[in-house]
Formats: sequence, C-alpha cells, structure tokens
Amino acid sequence: MAAEGQKLPIAERRNFLKNGLMLAGGMLAGAAANAQASDKNLSLNLPPNLPKWSRSLGPGVLTNPYGKPSRFESHIVRRNVPWLTADRIASISFTPLAELSGIITPNSLVFERHHAGIPDIDPEQHRLMLHGLVDRPIIFTLDDLRRMPSTSVIRFLECPANGGMEWRAAQMDALQFTHGMLSCCEWTGVLLSTLLQEVGVQESAAWVLAEGADGAHLSRSIPMHKAMDDALIVYAQNGEPLRPEQGYPLRLINPGWEGNTCVKWLRRLEVGDAAWYHREETAKYTDLLADGRARKFSFVQECNSVVTFPCPEKPPTEKGRYELQGLAWSGRGKIKQVDVSFDGGVNWRRAHLKGLVLAKALTRFSLDWDWDGGPALIQSRAVDQTGYVQPTYTQLREARGLSSIYHKNAIHTWRLHEGGKVTNVQIS
Amino acid sequence: MAAEGQKLPIAERRNFLKNGLMLAGGMLAGAAANAQASDKNLSLNLPPNLPKWSRSLGPGVLTNPYGKPSRFESHIVRRNVPWLTADRIASISFTPLAELSGIITPNSLVFERHHAGIPDIDPEQHRLMLHGLVDRPIIFTLDDLRRMPSTSVIRFLECPANGGMEWRAAQMDALQFTHGMLSCCEWTGVLLSTLLQEVGVQESAAWVLAEGADGAHLSRSIPMHKAMDDALIVYAQNGEPLRPEQGYPLRLINPGWEGNTCVKWLRRLEVGDAAWYHREETAKYTDLLADGRARKFSFVQECNSVVTFPCPEKPPTEKGRYELQGLAWSGRGKIKQVDVSFDGGVNWRRAHLKGLVLAKALTRFSLDWDWDGGPALIQSRAVDQTGYVQPTYTQLREARGLSSIYHKNAIHTWRLHEGGKVTNVQIS
Repeated sequence: MAAEGQKLPIAERRNFLKNGLMLAGGMLAGAAANAQASDKNLSLNLPPNLPKWSRSLGPGVLTNPYGKPSRFESHIVRRNVPWLTADRIASISFTPLAELSGIITPNSLVFERHHAGIPDIDPEQHRLMLHGLVDRPIIFTLDDLRRMPSTSVIRFLECPANGGMEWRAAQMDALQFTHGMLSCCEWTGVLLSTLLQEVGVQESAAWVLAEGADGAHLSRSIPMHKAMDDALIVYAQNGEPLRPEQGYPLRLINPGWEGNTCVKWLRRLEVGDAAWYHREETAKYTDLLADGRARKFSFVQECNSVVTFPCPEKPPTEKGRYELQGLAWSGRGKIKQVDVSFDGGVNWRRAHLKGLVLAKALTRFSLDWDWDGGPALIQSRAVDQTGYVQPTYTQLREARGLSSIYHKNAIHTWRLHEGGKVTNVQIS
Repeated sequence: MAAEGQKLPIAERRNFLKNGLMLAGGMLAGAAANAQASDKNLSLNLPPNLPKWSRSLGPGVLTNPYGKPSRFESHIVRRNVPWLTADRIASISFTPLAELSGIITPNSLVFERHHAGIPDIDPEQHRLMLHGLVDRPIIFTLDDLRRMPSTSVIRFLECPANGGMEWRAAQMDALQFTHGMLSCCEWTGVLLSTLLQEVGVQESAAWVLAEGADGAHLSRSIPMHKAMDDALIVYAQNGEPLRPEQGYPLRLINPGWEGNTCVKWLRRLEVGDAAWYHREETAKYTDLLADGRARKFSFVQECNSVVTFPCPEKPPTEKGRYELQGLAWSGRGKIKQVDVSFDGGVNWRRAHLKGLVLAKALTRFSLDWDWDGGPALIQSRAVDQTGYVQPTYTQLREARGLSSIYHKNAIHTWRLHEGGKVTNVQIS
C-alpha cells in the first residue's frame, strides 16, 4: 500500500495536512494537558476549537442498560418496499447490507418475513411437541431444551425470494432491496438429530413436519436426511435469546436452506413417511418452470454473491483508490473463489476472501480498486466448494424459465456511471 | 445421549407426557386446521386452550425498524455494582454472561468502562491524527479510513480489573460481577500497521501513544511491535457501526490486551521513541507487587476461564443430567484445553471445546454432567496454545502478592450447595 501511496487521494491531501499540523498539534497538546476537563474549567487554557465532547463529561454507564446505536446512525434500519405486499403483517423488511461490515448481521437488522405478523409468545407457556412416527412422543419446555447438549454455528439465513424482484424486472436501485433478505448470525440450540434420537425414530420415517405457533401456523416438510444432519432447534442468536421477529422463543434453522423452512415460533415437529404438501410448499415456495411443471422442495440456497461497495447507497465519491467489497455465500458449503468484473463479465479479477471462510455462512471478499472516474459494469461471480459456479441470467433462465420468483442467484450487475452514481442493470 | 436417556429428567417426564399427548395432539391438529385464524373467527372450531398468539395476527414488519428483544427477556441487561465507584460517569457496567450463548456478545450487552462518561461524537467532525516520528503526518476523516483495506476479526475484549473484586475478597454471588467485564465481538477496521506504513515510521520509533476524544483524554502507550502486528483501528462491531459506549466512531483494538489500551473515541496516534508514562499507565493499570515495585505495561490478558452454567444466576433446578458450560480465553492465542473439577481441584475431567476455537477469542466449553443433588466445588482450568496453565490463587499470589487489583486469572470456584444454590467461594 505504501509503495503505491501516490495514487491515494489520502496521499494527495498530505501537503495540506502537513501545513495544518502545527496548529492541530498545538491544539491537541493543550487538550491533553487538560485531561478530565469539564465545562466548569473552560476558563483554563482549553483551546476554543476543541470539540464539545472533549471538554465535558458525558453520561455514565447504564445510560442504556441495553445499549443503542449512536443517534448519528439512525439511518441504518430495516426497510420495506411499500408496493411489494398489501400490508405489513404478511410482508418483508430488508437488511441494510450496504451499511454492514464483516460477516455478522446484528440481530436488530436481520430482515423480517412474516406470514401472520409477530406473535408475542410467553416462553413459560410455550411448548415444542415432537410426535408422529416415533417411539416416545414428547413435549419439551424451553428449560428442557436449554439443558440438553447445545451447538453454536455461524450460518447465513436467506429468503428464497431474495432477488425475486429482479426476476420480474422490477429493478431496485438499492442493495438493501436487491439482496437484503439475507443475514448471517451465530445460532445456538440443540441439534434436531439429538431430539430425534431421544424419541426414537421409527423405520418408515422419512420426513419431519415443522409447524410454527404464529397465526399462520406456517409449516414445512423437511426430509429426514437434513433433520439428522445439521438442522438445529435454536433459542439464541448472536449470543442472546432469539428476537420476536426471528422466532422467539424457538426456531428451526436448516443451515443453507430456504429461510421459510427455518420455521419460526416452532411449536410442533411431526415425523412421517411422506411430505405433507402443505400450503407453503405447493402454492408458494415452488418454481414454475418453462414447461409448466413446478419445481418443488427447492430447499438449497445456491451459490450467490453481490458487490456491497460500490452500490447505489454507497457510490464512490471521487476518483482514486478504494477497497471494493462484497458478500458471497452458498447453501452447499464454503465459498472457494470469487471473481470480479468491471466490464460486464468480459474480464475478471480474482477477489480476496477476507477473514473467516465458514461453510454456509456469508464470506466477505475484497479487491483493491483504483477508480479512474469512468463508467463500469461491476459484477461478482462466486464458486463454492462443490465447484458450482454462480450462473449468468441466460444460464439461469435456460434452467428455470421466465416465471420463477425464487432462487434468483444470477450474476448481479451494478452500473457505475461517470461521476459516481451507481444503478442496477440486468445483463444477460 | 439416547442410550443414557433414563438418567434424564426429560425421560422421567415421558410417561406423564405420553398420557397427556392425546389431548395435546388433538389441540394441535385443531389449530393446524385453522391456520391464519384471527380473533375475528374465534366462533369457528378453534379449541379454547390454543394460545392467544396462535389464533391472531401479530404486528407486522418494521414494528421496530431497528429491532428489540422480547419483553420477556428484559432482565438481560448490563448492571453495575453501586458501591464500586463513586458515580456512574467514571464507572463500570457488567455483561450478563450467565444469559449468553455461543461466543458472540451482542453489542447492546458489552460491558462498559468509562473514565469521563460517553461522548456524543459527530462522526463528520471527528478526526484521527497520526503524527510524531513519522515522515508524513496526516489527519484522517472516517471516510478516509473506511475506503482503506479493512480487516474483520472475532476477538475478546476484557478489562484487566475483571475479577478485581475477587482479589480484594469482595466475593460477589453473580457471574455477571465476578467475570462480566468481558465480551467477544467481530471487529472491523484498518490495521494500524497499514496506517503506519502509509505515513512512514522513522527509525527511532518504538512506541505509539493512543489518545481518546472523551473528556478524560484517556491515553496509553503501545509498543511498536503490537502496533505493527494485529492492532486494529475499528469502526464497526458485530457488523454495525461501533456503539457510543464502545468508542463510536473510532476505537483502537489491541487483540488480547487490556481493554483500557483499546482506546475508545480515538482521536490521536503519536509515534515516539519511548513510552509516555501517562496517568493510566502509572497511577492505574499497574500491579503493586509484594516487594513494593509496580508491574507496569502488563498488557496481555492471560489465559482464564469460568463456568457459566451452573452459576449463582443459573443454578440447577433438580437432580439429573445437564450440560455444564463455560468460557475460556487467552490473550496469547487459542485455547488448547479446559478441564473441569467438581471437588475443588482434586479430580479433573476434560471438557469439550465447542464450535469455533479462535485465537484471542472466547471459546465455549462443555461437559455432560449428571448432578446427584449433592454439594460440589466446581472449577475450570484452561490451557492455551503456548502451554500456559491457568494458575491457582496460591500460584498467582506467589507471583503477584496481595495488593494487585488487575489481571486476576486464578482458577475460580463455584460452591454448589445441596438443593442447588450456587455461591462464590475462594479456594487456594
């Protein structure tokens, strides 16, 4: 970085800064001599341009026993698309991905998808029943589950409708709306396989129905192989109890699978010998193919990626050096590789995978980027550990036709305009 | 687990539950048939004992654009010890460790330690100056830093006074107060080494002074080897911007080192050829040894551990099978091994390290535990990757005397009483 320092706008500012430093240095030295100065001793030698917060006492601990963000960050919130749903009760809100760093999504910013609003469940009254083709049906309290062996994993959670507006050509000029039904948290709970071993699964068992306690009683059929693999009955998210809008007090997490299979407010697990074909796996969450057939039980969230900087909400502000960033994820395992194109997919540069690269988790990637101020078509293309390569729109349409809403994982394009504006375009 | 199921209270409840299942099953089947029922159609065949939240619509998305915990978890907050400090402005609040899962501490629950309260900093006005023995002194804006190459790491943060009340025999019957100046977050920012390379460090440079913008202008001298290793200038914590009480908008993180060296509200970095011996590294944050000398620049938070269940806030409720849990950490690297004793250190059992085991991060450990209802003296003892073994009180006192406040990492003991109460005792 230092060797190429001349290219940096930061470096261009140096002369200005060097000239200004005498003054600034004097200011700071004066301030240091007045450590713990409060407004009361302003008559001492505090320089007049020292910020208010450096010459006063602030509020103390427990101002917020449960903390809150700075008032200067109040724009970092979930948002919805008003025309997308008839009301907010059966609706969606989106994670502000452009504002986030690293791979953890804070609980307060995890996207929402409700079918009958957010139930206000008393955990003392809540129960989980496990029955059907099992030897010893049982009803668990939360305390029962909390004393069993626990597992914690960092995994992404994504609604399969993420990108659905893109399929239908309603192209939103905001990363929050093109990819914001996406999050990544540390989930803690009990492996479903532990519960199933506890009750004794019968030989003919092949599926597990998971049902929620909300007014919609949302239910999904889960194949036994997933139930016995990494499916998790979770009670905690990023260290603290689940949030109400994320399924409090109990939720199923099927790592790497459609968010709607990760049934919230979980009240019932029924073991059976066939899938149930309930409403949310027939009328919804199926993909209508070109030949009129419906692709059903399309569980896995396939390998996908998106550039998070630059994006419509975070355009570059001037020519010069930046760190391009993005997120990649795959429901099949780890991200192996991400490439970035600045010319709409003609040439590609290998991105750097940053920090932790975990299976079925968001993986952040970056690339040193020197913007010349000109236009560009910026894309990212991820490859997962199975060798699956994120498809183009043409490839995805060949496989899925034109009528799908779910599982849009085609390579996404940001159009960077001369001057720095970023908009959303679709390139085949 | 299934093989030993007879020991589980859950299993003991089975007969009761099996008898009750016909009723419960009927109830649930009725409820499922009435999916999306609202209060309006209660005249249909909804069973009367179906919880209210399963027969009504809840509030929709964006009820809280920035989410909040369930009202049933309002007891999970930071707390202080009123007699510990004269006021709340220069004081401490503690993380509720007994209520947390996994290794991530949610931002709202990260302990607080302020010397002059929480400054309310406008990020647009905030600057970081880097000067002293450098070729090109510079002042950074937040935007400057955000466009530079970023790094994200999950690391623990601990105040060296954590356990200080234990040293002085004020033994609190609460995990929140014995060990709650401890947290673990994903931090994102720019490596300090990147900034130092940018400005060109001069040959005689050996230390870096970090100074905060709060009223106390808290400052610490950091040796150049740490500055050039993993010290990070962070602007984000668990994905979102730093919280005000954690240093918003900019903080130094020295992974594995004393929390007070991780200067909050960072405004100035000065490169020098010697340490500054400022107030917080002379009057405070030194350890008075038995021979009257003071141990200074005691940066590393040494290998430590504590059992988080059972603990005073979370005692066992009845005889039977539990998962004992705890946290271990070391400022020198990864946790290699944790052993647990139930008899005050006579016999030890190897614990299981759960989930991610990361350097300088909290590591959660567990042990299957069958409580016979009798008394026990429960301890954990951690070993880190360097082979350092967490000491006994006797060993720690031999090294540090009786007057220390900081760096108490002696093996901790919970006394489990017959009947299940848990209290805090000190065993040599």
